[in-house]
Amino acid sequence: MKNKIKVIHDLNKEETFYQKFFLDEPFLMESGELLKNVSVAYETYGKLNEEGTNAIIICHALTGDSHASSYNFPDSREGWWDGIIGINKAFDPEKYFIVCSNFLGGCYGTTGPASINPTTGKPYNFNFPQMTVRDMVNLQYKLIKYLNINRIKTITGGSLGGMQTLEWVLMYPEIVDSIIPIAVGAKHSAWAIGLNEIQRKAIMEDPDWNNGNYIEQPKKGLSTARMLAMMSYRSTESFEQKFGREIRHQSENESKPFFQVESYLRYQGQKLVDRFDANTYLYITRAMDLHDVTKNRGTLEETLSKIKAPTLSIGIDSDLLYPTSEQKEIARLILNSKYFEIKSLHGHDAFLIEFDQLNRAIKEFLN
Amino acid sequence: MKNKIKVIHDLNKEETFYQKFFLDEPFLMESGELLKNVSVAYETYGKLNEEGTNAIIICHALTGDSHASSYNFPDSREGWWDGIIGINKAFDPEKYFIVCSNFLGGCYGTTGPASINPTTGKPYNFNFPQMTVRDMVNLQYKLIKYLNINRIKTITGGSLGGMQTLEWVLMYPEIVDSIIPIAVGAKHSAWAIGLNEIQRKAIMEDPDWNNGNYIEQPKKGLSTARMLAMMSYRSTESFEQKFGREIRHQSENESKPFFQVESYLRYQGQKLVDRFDANTYLYITRAMDLHDVTKNRGTLEETLSKIKAPTLSIGIDSDLLYPTSEQKEIARLILNSKYFEIKSLHGHDAFLIEFDQLNRAIKEFLN
Repeated sequence: MKNKIKVIHDLNKEETFYQKFFLDEPFLMESGELLKNVSVAYETYGKLNEEGTNAIIICHALTGDSHASSYNFPDSREGWWDGIIGINKAFDPEKYFIVCSNFLGGCYGTTGPASINPTTGKPYNFNFPQMTVRDMVNLQYKLIKYLNINRIKTITGGSLGGMQTLEWVLMYPEIVDSIIPIAVGAKHSAWAIGLNEIQRKAIMEDPDWNNGNYIEQPKKGLSTARMLAMMSYRSTESFEQKFGREIRHQSENESKPFFQVESYLRYQGQKLVDRFDANTYLYITRAMDLHDVTKNRGTLEETLSKIKAPTLSIGIDSDLLYPTSEQKEIARLILNSKYFEIKSLHGHDAFLIEFDQLNRAIKEFLN
Repeated sequence: MKNKIKVIHDLNKEETFYQKFFLDEPFLMESGELLKNVSVAYETYGKLNEEGTNAIIICHALTGDSHASSYNFPDSREGWWDGIIGINKAFDPEKYFIVCSNFLGGCYGTTGPASINPTTGKPYNFNFPQMTVRDMVNLQYKLIKYLNINRIKTITGGSLGGMQTLEWVLMYPEIVDSIIPIAVGAKHSAWAIGLNEIQRKAIMEDPDWNNGNYIEQPKKGLSTARMLAMMSYRSTESFEQKFGREIRHQSENESKPFFQVESYLRYQGQKLVDRFDANTYLYITRAMDLHDVTKNRGTLEETLSKIKAPTLSIGIDSDLLYPTSEQKEIARLILNSKYFEIKSLHGHDAFLIEFDQLNRAIKEFLN
């Protein structure tokens, strides 16, 4: 494990376990802008075989990071996909060389809005160029080359991770053996864009945002954004089962949480404020809104029919944010594809919860 | 039409056409507080028969008002339920005496947070006592008595209007012949409470809210609240059909609306700021969250089984906010009840849109 870095993360003060890859030339973005001094935070699990053909690329979602698994450091904090990465699980480090990197524009080790702009010596903040999902994939491609990976056994991820998965196979079809896009559509829908826009508005209208030049986080706006996002990540049924009308305080005072669900949402909002950068949140949600596999590629049918790699499209029956119709459409328009539906109460977040179903479906697909 | 008042409304500068009923004694609220100088804004369509038995009570939703129909003033602005109130429609003023009043705590003529507190000579603002749906019904009952109504042919409304409908028949069963609750549940769900809480947070964290003592509306917070509410009033499909990925500006500048859906939501937010009081919004959403027909009445089964009046429970297949399971539950637990489902792309708002289906179902039910 070369270049292993064990640092204290800026925001959450937690130990992180990523390695760093430093680009030795400026990175050309889809917008035409050149980004200097780019570095990528990544983790790997397992060993690359001699042919360089047993790689699995894991793509994380909006507020995720490269710590997909605690396989390398069993005593470290949990990885967000520990449930399907591990011995005898869908992605087994004894068989595969598994790579997960923080994407371009993130705030968990890879260059993004909170990084120092080498030209000014100050953080980019709101002067970071708007990255796209294609930029994220291009940067991951450079990492893959650096790691001497020749072929990718499969690429997968949920939500924004699924967007990267779809772009990967369209941009680098020659090295991708298969893909598993999860809980995602081929284009970001109007409803999903609308939700993101309200979240951005909440952040940018918080006076503490200060045009992106804050010292302290705009915590009111960012927590509102997170609370709203949480509503779309879960289902009405999951909220009902978890909270119902349970009361937190006996006071019906308007300004304090009254129902348990209100208290829970505020707690979730605060947790994100403690661990995630507000400007980064603005940029990533915009990158998601710009997600559209058809851009410069023709119709949706033309675009998805270009994908020849075997595809397992996974939907979640209770997903409000990416209804199953979107994953079914992906499966319908990709020639060599199968559709699998996770049955869950948990809504969109089920891809981070329903590990039994994911392990079963992915193992069968990979065999 | 006695006491007809034609005034310029404070907020929206539109002509209103309501009459006013002034209570001659303090109004006792569920909280135990006494509210002085209460007045009620209401409209009526058609004539009460001699026996006083042909009344229809229409209950409006969160940001609605007493102008359910333009029947009295065909040249006035549209009534929010013109589609089903009118000659040969479900609620025909030639047959029925139709009453719609602005509920207690509203800002369209009835006493509420924006009204003058007679004790201080200043607006109540955030010192208004928290009203409940039961308070709204009790005040409507006083209006009904004042209008010499002896029996109510039916009571109906969607959303918060449906909550009042359910409380009406539980509180005054002896005068209610039938009810038609639409797009509503017997208790406000955790998901719906969560959405309301985020909206309240957005308003109360807007510095212009100023603990409720604003001169100018807290327009950023109130518009964010409305935008979020709009997401829950429509369906993902309706947003997709209406907007898709249509682009509004060619600039991808983060601070300006980029997709048409973003521009539309901001417009909707601003429209509410121009016509609705922010404190009132806080109080009404809390009243909705407190909606629970079982409060002090036993289990849900016990409570709903007390309802003997024929009931038409109407759900909307695409309703995100009040899933059809909630209206089906109402129909299942009320003895003499039928369930009707509106088929619509439009989500929760379908009760303000799908007039053909509503007319058909309600006419059949009333005959």
